[in-house]
Amino acid sequence: MKIAIQGEAGSFSHEAARRMAPGCTIVPCARSAEVFDRVGRGSVDAAVIPIENSLAGSVTEHFDLLLARKVFIEREFRLRIVHNLIVLPGVKREDLRRVYSHPVALEQCRDFFRRNRKVEPVPFYDTAGSVKHVVENRLRDAAGIAGRQAVKAYKGRILAAGIEDDKRNFTRFFLIRSKRRVLRGANKTSIAFSLQNIPGALFKALSVFALRDISLSKIESRPMRGRPWEYVFYADFLRGDDLAARNALHHLAEVADLVKVLGVYPSA
Amino acid sequence: MKIAIQGEAGSFSHEAARRMAPGCTIVPCARSAEVFDRVGRGSVDAAVIPIENSLAGSVTEHFDLLLARKVFIEREFRLRIVHNLIVLPGVKREDLRRVYSHPVALEQCRDFFRRNRKVEPVPFYDTAGSVKHVVENRLRDAAGIAGRQAVKAYKGRILAAGIEDDKRNFTRFFLIRSKRRVLRGANKTSIAFSLQNIPGALFKALSVFALRDISLSKIESRPMRGRPWEYVFYADFLRGDDLAARNALHHLAEVADLVKVLGVYPSA
Repeated sequence: MKIAIQGEAGSFSHEAARRMAPGCTIVPCARSAEVFDRVGRGSVDAAVIPIENSLAGSVTEHFDLLLARKVFIEREFRLRIVHNLIVLPGVKREDLRRVYSHPVALEQCRDFFRRNRKVEPVPFYDTAGSVKHVVENRLRDAAGIAGRQAVKAYKGRILAAGIEDDKRNFTRFFLIRSKRRVLRGANKTSIAFSLQNIPGALFKALSVFALRDISLSKIESRPMRGRPWEYVFYADFLRGDDLAARNALHHLAEVADLVKVLGVYPSA
Repeated sequence: MKIAIQGEAGSFSHEAARRMAPGCTIVPCARSAEVFDRVGRGSVDAAVIPIENSLAGSVTEHFDLLLARKVFIEREFRLRIVHNLIVLPGVKREDLRRVYSHPVALEQCRDFFRRNRKVEPVPFYDTAGSVKHVVENRLRDAAGIAGRQAVKAYKGRILAAGIEDDKRNFTRFFLIRSKRRVLRGANKTSIAFSLQNIPGALFKALSVFALRDISLSKIESRPMRGRPWEYVFYADFLRGDDLAARNALHHLAEVADLVKVLGVYPSA
């Protein structure tokens, strides 16, 4: 099974893909749009994309692409994010002067930098990419911060494991395909919808769920691309493809300008 | 007036601060938490922070900090984002091999890179910082992408102006202070609230606005820090500090676990 991911091999997306589809082959892509392109034209079987992190929030670009492209969410997965300090084999803690990683990862390891004042955090475009950079350039005074998968990908060594400040750090991933497929046990639905900009519009939209005792587990508004300050709503509700859910969606279509079912899948 | 911003001098925050408070003195801070710290302890008069971009979405860290810290939104401002290709004086288009900028800025200038295949986009931690990097290191084969303010800050030269793909690119900024102050003409309120995780909770919460014909202009759920998959809601509604708004907030406090008024200010 070929799975596209955004970013370098060895990233958290790589780790999530291996956990969701053991034995899969990873196809790293520089940009998220390319990941969706590959799914769309069938040059991969599926893609695994991060959608929200419990500390950093939503990956907004992926919400936009889920709405714009003809893809369907088949599964979700929650990965515990563990940040490791990864070096060239033989490099010791006292050799370090700089530590590269994605700004979000650096921010999540603040205590480490507080305890190691001589080490400078340097923002880099990607977590796994920072390890690749350190290993390929044989940097002996630098480290990268990334997940365990990066050690295997680039033959680095872990100097310190689990240096993230907050252990309650999870990222939610989706496995997406070009064709709609609803797995057995699917009990969660992700949708996008847009409303006319009139008072009470969202209240009416949410009534279609409240009136049927359907629980929303997430709602988020995002500006619509190209229409500044008009919003599209992303919501998850805790029902699969059953009668109540279909009635609610039918009812929602009456009050919304646009409704798209992004996926129906088993809750992680 | 001293105003703290996150990031380097010459950034879009710098531009927004100058537009909101002409003649102000800028205090650049490396991290957003430091910006809020400075406002809190009074070492600056105010701060100007980006809160959402019409293409890239919310600046989630700033929502978290607005909730966590004792600050108050006094004004909002919408800045049109214009990306410029900025070089060392004397450098020509044909000299360029690399263009540095923040990944979001690079992504918003995709057409430029499509037309200039020999130029490689290189992710950098900051837009203005990319210009600083190019100018300070006297790089003659590289450019940065940033706003006009960066030209003044680092004595660069604009080689091409307005290279962003989508002209409908705006960022919304808040001016925040440590003390609550409601300006004359305030007609918009930003709040944060959290709800028990039970069916219909959000529906009930929104009813307090719908029942009073109060229009919501934005709503967004964010995971609560330290409580994965519990959400706090951020909403804007189009009323100032009047009786209907106060009644709605009083009613909201009955159904919500927590309600915080983040600011009451004139709509931009």
